Amino acid sequence: MTEFPQLNGFRGGGGIIRLIGHRGARGVMPENTMEGFAFTYRIGVVAFEFDVVLTRDQIPVITHNHRLANAATRAPDGNWKTGAEPKVADLTFDELQTLDVGGLDGQSEYGQRFSDQAFMSGVRIPRLCDLLDMAAQPEHADMHLLLELKSDPDIKDDTSARAQVVASVVQEVRKRHLEPRTVLHSFDWDLLDECRRQAPEMPTSYLSELPGNVDEPGEDSATLVGPDYAAMTVSVPQAIKDAGGQMWCPYYMDVTPDLVSEAHALGLLVSTWTVNDKADIEAMIDAGADGIVSDYPGRVQHCLLNRGMHWRDGGA
Amino acid sequence: MTEFPQLNGFRGGGGIIRLIGHRGARGVMPENTMEGFAFTYRIGVVAFEFDVVLTRDQIPVITHNHRLANAATRAPDGNWKTGAEPKVADLTFDELQTLDVGGLDGQSEYGQRFSDQAFMSGVRIPRLCDLLDMAAQPEHADMHLLLELKSDPDIKDDTSARAQVVASVVQEVRKRHLEPRTVLHSFDWDLLDECRRQAPEMPTSYLSELPGNVDEPGEDSATLVGPDYAAMTVSVPQAIKDAGGQMWCPYYMDVTPDLVSEAHALGLLVSTWTVNDKADIEAMIDAGADGIVSDYPGRVQHCLLNRGMHWRDGGA
Repeated sequence: MTEFPQLNGFRGGGGIIRLIGHRGARGVMPENTMEGFAFTYRIGVVAFEFDVVLTRDQIPVITHNHRLANAATRAPDGNWKTGAEPKVADLTFDELQTLDVGGLDGQSEYGQRFSDQAFMSGVRIPRLCDLLDMAAQPEHADMHLLLELKSDPDIKDDTSARAQVVASVVQEVRKRHLEPRTVLHSFDWDLLDECRRQAPEMPTSYLSELPGNVDEPGEDSATLVGPDYAAMTVSVPQAIKDAGGQMWCPYYMDVTPDLVSEAHALGLLVSTWTVNDKADIEAMIDAGADGIVSDYPGRVQHCLLNRGMHWRDGGA
Repeated sequence: MTEFPQLNGFRGGGGIIRLIGHRGARGVMPENTMEGFAFTYRIGVVAFEFDVVLTRDQIPVITHNHRLANAATRAPDGNWKTGAEPKVADLTFDELQTLDVGGLDGQSEYGQRFSDQAFMSGVRIPRLCDLLDMAAQPEHADMHLLLELKSDPDIKDDTSARAQVVASVVQEVRKRHLEPRTVLHSFDWDLLDECRRQAPEMPTSYLSELPGNVDEPGEDSATLVGPDYAAMTVSVPQAIKDAGGQMWCPYYMDVTPDLVSEAHALGLLVSTWTVNDKADIEAMIDAGADGIVSDYPGRVQHCLLNRGMHWRDGGA
């Protein structure tokens, strides 16, 4: 029994741990692309974590960083972008569509992190509605979405702009009646308040990363808008419960079995990111996480199957 | 200029080294399956190496081992096969279709070798005609096939049965007019004589593995029908040239730059298998190979791009 049907797609237990494709399957396919999402679904992964940012013309698009990473972006001439990295919020959707995000520059630190990722050409940043249209197809009725709203640090005090981000996303989800399979997810806990205000029918998922963890190449976590962990007087799960959340999504290095137990006792689900090494995947299974967000879904599948576990109801 | 247009899809030089998907992309997707071939093409790989065996009812199917590996085969009840591994040649195509080859048993040595491979369900051994139909579609006009004929050691003295293997394969290729994009390929050099006799319009590719190399888990190389390398009085490339071949496909551990140069001087192309580790991929590029057969096409793409090289004409 749950008040939110969405959570069934993210709840572990009974031999199930949810496998959540990170930006599709970033270890294998270009991240946050329809090509990557199609691959991820094709291999039997039905839960998707991905990132939404608004363009200058207010179109929600699926991309991770506020500024387009040169290492993942080719200009129309086929060459890697160089120089200052533009903000997505400063470009129109049409301008974004001139860029190719189908491959990584292998000379970059980021490209070296994902040196098995397929290199494709002619791949575009998708709109949120492209993925939602995929999820709305009858044959994809088992897809569940962990939709991350990226919080732009440059507008963190602009209440109306922040509300507009949430409104744009919620409108697209509702238009396709996907609320029953969508969880709203952010590092910006205040933005999740706004999500609950505008869309009380969707549960909220609280991303966390404790201070002191080293940022990995190619991520822009340093600019994250988030709570002041040092100032918290309760545990992170308790703080999420107090805030009104239903799910905790901690960085995997911050996870302990005790914290997972505490979260469960509070009625929260726990999905942890981004778990890529086999030993870390095993540790997260041992810790009792409900879900594992990974760039390497095949690797997680093997770890689960080797324990007689599965990521889908019925093990199908 | 070449007498065989097929070879253009396998010729390196001028910044090109051909990336040849091994059984699709075995490191990522279930091997020798339509699901794997579709993925491989989708990521821009246009050359395919795969294996053909005849069923009891003489249907050419795409699978590697003569005996179905338990570690890669699930029964209709969903459990891994156990006990004696049946020969494909003893099963009808309909019987084969009851088996699921969409995933590896992670507890097995073979499953541990490919622990990132996606685990899928409901995946069947394809017929040769299924892949040929894919290649014949207008949108796949750039697909090139390196079609390995597996030589059954149990019938190695049965001339008529061996001729039937070749005839079945050639008939399917000709039916779809795919001869101009198909190279016939085997460890069994005598069988390649038969290929040339029956299908002189297709070039022949000579697989080789020198004695002393250790067999990797899950392969049945020990049962290979092949030439007696110890008895050869000339180099392997010279022996292939003398036999009438156009391509040499050596095990990567047997490759040296001098042998590649010798093969090129003899007018042979050189594609090497199965090259999976980054250092080995780099060594094969350095050695001047025309083609690299790999289970990890994304990894080879990165290695080539990092040198400003590509695997497709025009770098598209």
